[in-house]
Amino acid sequence: MAQQPELESAREEISQLVERLNEAEQDNQFALFEQAKEQIEPGELALLLESLPIAQRLERWQQVERTQQVDVLVAMRAEARGAILRTLSSPELEHLLRGVDAESLVELADDLPESLLDEALTQMTSRQRDWYEQANQYGEDELGRYLNHDLVLVPANARVSEAIRALGRTQFNYSEHAYLVDKQGLYRGAVSLAQLLACPGDLRLNSQEWQSVNPLLSHSSINDATEAVEHSGFTALPVVDPEGRLQGRISLNLALELTREQYEARLMATVGLDEETDLFSSVKRSAQRRAVWLGINLMTALLASWVIGRFEATLVQVVALAVLMPIVASMGGIAGSQTLTLVIRGLAMGQITQGNLWPLIRKELGVGLINGVAWAVVIGVVATLWFGSGMTGVVMALAIVINISVAALAGVLIPVWLDRVRIDPALSGSVILTTVTDVVGFVSFLGLGTWFLLG
Amino acid sequence: MAQQPELESAREEISQLVERLNEAEQDNQFALFEQAKEQIEPGELALLLESLPIAQRLERWQQVERTQQVDVLVAMRAEARGAILRTLSSPELEHLLRGVDAESLVELADDLPESLLDEALTQMTSRQRDWYEQANQYGEDELGRYLNHDLVLVPANARVSEAIRALGRTQFNYSEHAYLVDKQGLYRGAVSLAQLLACPGDLRLNSQEWQSVNPLLSHSSINDATEAVEHSGFTALPVVDPEGRLQGRISLNLALELTREQYEARLMATVGLDEETDLFSSVKRSAQRRAVWLGINLMTALLASWVIGRFEATLVQVVALAVLMPIVASMGGIAGSQTLTLVIRGLAMGQITQGNLWPLIRKELGVGLINGVAWAVVIGVVATLWFGSGMTGVVMALAIVINISVAALAGVLIPVWLDRVRIDPALSGSVILTTVTDVVGFVSFLGLGTWFLLG
Repeated sequence: MAQQPELESAREEISQLVERLNEAEQDNQFALFEQAKEQIEPGELALLLESLPIAQRLERWQQVERTQQVDVLVAMRAEARGAILRTLSSPELEHLLRGVDAESLVELADDLPESLLDEALTQMTSRQRDWYEQANQYGEDELGRYLNHDLVLVPANARVSEAIRALGRTQFNYSEHAYLVDKQGLYRGAVSLAQLLACPGDLRLNSQEWQSVNPLLSHSSINDATEAVEHSGFTALPVVDPEGRLQGRISLNLALELTREQYEARLMATVGLDEETDLFSSVKRSAQRRAVWLGINLMTALLASWVIGRFEATLVQVVALAVLMPIVASMGGIAGSQTLTLVIRGLAMGQITQGNLWPLIRKELGVGLINGVAWAVVIGVVATLWFGSGMTGVVMALAIVINISVAALAGVLIPVWLDRVRIDPALSGSVILTTVTDVVGFVSFLGLGTWFLLG
Repeated sequence: MAQQPELESAREEISQLVERLNEAEQDNQFALFEQAKEQIEPGELALLLESLPIAQRLERWQQVERTQQVDVLVAMRAEARGAILRTLSSPELEHLLRGVDAESLVELADDLPESLLDEALTQMTSRQRDWYEQANQYGEDELGRYLNHDLVLVPANARVSEAIRALGRTQFNYSEHAYLVDKQGLYRGAVSLAQLLACPGDLRLNSQEWQSVNPLLSHSSINDATEAVEHSGFTALPVVDPEGRLQGRISLNLALELTREQYEARLMATVGLDEETDLFSSVKRSAQRRAVWLGINLMTALLASWVIGRFEATLVQVVALAVLMPIVASMGGIAGSQTLTLVIRGLAMGQITQGNLWPLIRKELGVGLINGVAWAVVIGVVATLWFGSGMTGVVMALAIVINISVAALAGVLIPVWLDRVRIDPALSGSVILTTVTDVVGFVSFLGLGTWFLLG
């Protein structure tokens, strides 16, 4: 009866499998995977398939059990999944989609041909189809798109004993509440098994005040919804549409999944990629996806170069400026990103408003000035010694103070402005910031240089 | 009996409060907060206090109810909390710590004077003290440090009816399982209320095989542990030490909290900050914290400048090179960060191993070459037209291809190597990468320039 602790984490297990699969001969790969797939669950199988180069991924996919295929695909990132779906023939896809539920179909829909999607919808039960259509009305950032539908529903006028029976039919792993709905489908409250067990069985549910479980709105943002579940003290919260009709629920489990995805998206956005990016997508596809970001960067780099070009005459006479100028731009960029990252986090948590913007700017400017002056002195001395020119050191120091201070200001204002005009600051913030710190850095340094050294 | 949906998210609520608090006169701030604090829970109060500039934060802190103070402090980020704790006198701290539990004390310990910490420990029950000491044996990244201790424990030889009573005494919001332990405290299994209700009351628990709930090891990493709970299908998992003694549990709620913290840490690490950074820490403190990162960046920038300095003679003769050189460095930096970010994510999920490293390098090099060549052509044409020199265009194009390809390679190898020597790639990866792309960019561009244009 003693229980074995899980000595190996899922992550290590997958690492080792990837390792062994890659080392094995063609034939052994098949056998290895046959054996492994029995022991790992769909989420891990998804992670494993994502870790394989595309050719191998497609071979191993053939071995995934029919009953697990949909779950594995749903757990995969969109781009990695697409690489598999694109190789399947229409009959194969049709076979795959037989009996698919609404939540899975919402995930897969983008990668399916229109006709097959329609086919799958007509084969669904009408309830599943309703859920699918409901989910599809919501955007990527709205809670309504991702709801769980495995609810325990009881009519608001049912008896306690009926509710207990309804809960007993489930595993109630997650659904610790039965949700009460009236004839119009309006949410009327929630009741837990613990509360039910303390009541006489023939009591009518609507004759009693139960603990209040406030539902979330289906239009809530993912961020708000996951926070709400986390702090609710319950393992799930009911979700209603603006008319008060119960639409589904969000469990802690779903909240965890959505939270991960959201942070992944924020991390990937900093380099112009999205959460669905595949580690092993085809070279052509990856190159296309990344080209845009490089192109945007090229525009800003060209702008910076154009600024430098305005000072050609100065550069010809004082080559030291050309040698030192990247330092000015780089110090501004680093200081600015620190402020930017702090502010983006504050915005995501609703901590920054019109009200505390000014104190925040004052603080960041203060930090910028202190570090600006401190490092300006260091860099000024280095520049003076290096080029044997005190004036070069002064120019360098002044430019550093200016650029780090401007960077601090820009680090606050850029994301706040982007947030106000509803552009994702995590995606565009750093490009704009770098443009500002490059241009200000080069202009101040080369401008001061022209003035002090040639004037 | 109809339930109101939460029309305002906690985030909006806090935003509005911060706004109103900052706009209000001194006296009204007091009244506003008095009214608000009744309606929001400790986690939100913590977020609110963090959003206030320090002077205001300290005033509002005075108003937080004694019974909520510890919870609010624990929910705050370490740096923001420190700003409050440092202003409290010893008697105030002593008062605050009366009745504190082990989990809270672990959080607060770093900001408390040694003597007060000892005092608090002696006043604790021996069970709480044991938990505190247990938690303190684990590092910041180990599960054992963060365990929940609100377990429902039953002796392995108890009867079903006793287990039901034990579960009945809790709200079993989270603890859907009662954990069985033997006389040595060894974990012997878990049993749910649903299973218990289906058995005769006088059955002995150890005479039965229950559903297997594998415990996690207390030394597991946060990452592994949160994944395990998420995929377990349970709302919590038991955690044991290497000897098999039950030490606590990790609930989905805790997993969500730890997941958030871990991603925040990864996001902040990209600019050399940590998760505990306070939006409104004092200017002096912030300046100190950020200075180190600027210093490290200065070293790498000086290295890049030194490289440029080797080509002074060339720059004097061909000033176009000085104008164009930032473009080469910048394009390499951007391409490299895209690869770096993708690889860091893969490493965090255990998807990258010795086994698939080579296919990954090949793919990233392929992407680098395609984008390198594509953008090299564009940039080469621009440079040719700008400076009226085809040779300048050729030099530029070649340098871009070289730097973007090297960036792709470095973007894979740097984080993989850092991970192997157990340095956090999220923290150090981008500094090292930028150094590589700057140096390679300048050397290849100026080197080729010297050779083609002056040779």
